[in-house]
Amino acid sequence: MDVNSFYEVVHRRRDVRGEFTGGVVSPEVLRRILSAAHAAPSVGLSQPWDFVLIRDVGIRTAFRDHVQAEREVFAGQLDEERSRIFARIKVEGVLESSLGIVVTYDPQRGSPAVLGRHAIADAGLYSVCLAIQNLWLAATTEGLGVGWVSFYREEFLRDLLGIPRQIRPVAWLCLGPVRTLHTTPDLERHGWRDRIPLAQVMHEERFGRPAQH
Amino acid sequence: MDVNSFYEVVHRRRDVRGEFTGGVVSPEVLRRILSAAHAAPSVGLSQPWDFVLIRDVGIRTAFRDHVQAEREVFAGQLDEERSRIFARIKVEGVLESSLGIVVTYDPQRGSPAVLGRHAIADAGLYSVCLAIQNLWLAATTEGLGVGWVSFYREEFLRDLLGIPRQIRPVAWLCLGPVRTLHTTPDLERHGWRDRIPLAQVMHEERFGRPAQH
Repeated sequence: MDVNSFYEVVHRRRDVRGEFTGGVVSPEVLRRILSAAHAAPSVGLSQPWDFVLIRDVGIRTAFRDHVQAEREVFAGQLDEERSRIFARIKVEGVLESSLGIVVTYDPQRGSPAVLGRHAIADAGLYSVCLAIQNLWLAATTEGLGVGWVSFYREEFLRDLLGIPRQIRPVAWLCLGPVRTLHTTPDLERHGWRDRIPLAQVMHEERFGRPAQH
Repeated sequence: MDVNSFYEVVHRRRDVRGEFTGGVVSPEVLRRILSAAHAAPSVGLSQPWDFVLIRDVGIRTAFRDHVQAEREVFAGQLDEERSRIFARIKVEGVLESSLGIVVTYDPQRGSPAVLGRHAIADAGLYSVCLAIQNLWLAATTEGLGVGWVSFYREEFLRDLLGIPRQIRPVAWLCLGPVRTLHTTPDLERHGWRDRIPLAQVMHEERFGRPAQH
């Protein structure tokens, strides 16, 4: 495979809020994207994820309203300067996107002896996130956008979708065609926070020892 | 980009234990792979990850010994049949790989007001996992192998690498050239657990309602 085109996808990928067109995602494309998610590595091959596809406008509107309320909760915690910046930032595209995909984590799958999880209980949760990133890059490759909405209470989403108590919602992903993918993340464009240099997060042999290359 | 070649990488990627050659990873390749990890999405653009590159044989041997001890802990929890299967499964390639990359999570980065994390404390941890999957796919694209080792106690690894108390180790990734990538995951080849059909984890509108396509 062409190494450069892989990196082009990685760097083109954005977290989309305002650019969804609401256009159709074909069943074939959706299936390829979900197959990529489902091919992710998982601790003990537990594959502890589920994907709930949500097109229903009633469900999406209820979720969007909840997200808006949580947005206000967060806004109330900010000082004046941060508030002003935050007011310009869109945090979700729940109704504008073509569909929502809720990704969940089932800790019971593959239990009781999940190979590789006895010492790190969260390892199953980690696997679910690996599936999400496969989904995200696959969608980007297909020319679609994805936006991860995290302004919600897990209990609310569990009740809304009838998710059993022992299963944990991990993400609401908005998916669909987009007008454009910005070259700069929304939060950087709006002055919320900048990307940091790679060198700042690279260490050698011990934490805190800067890497040489 | 060629959609098929992206999916080829996603499906070729394996969790490697026994196939590392120990060959050199050039600084340029390593840098591209880490840049891909660092380009992952993160809650509130917090970029809460760090990467510790470990080549030192003393550190790696200490970690490998700890992993072997944790392997015995897990083995002690298994019934006879599972024990027999587990005995054939290699769980780490710490010394055989070219280097280890420990990925950590810093919940303080971007604090106090991390946009998108007020309702879901684990959202920062999720971001770190997205970076790990970018790294994994990038390495696969470059023709290298990655193996995520999770038979360890976080406290042990924190002490070994001088990781500050507030920072959490998330993964030890073995990285390097490989003789081959198997077409079937190790755990499936050895009869530990099978991959499940995608349809089994797809739902529509509500959890538990099977998807139609």
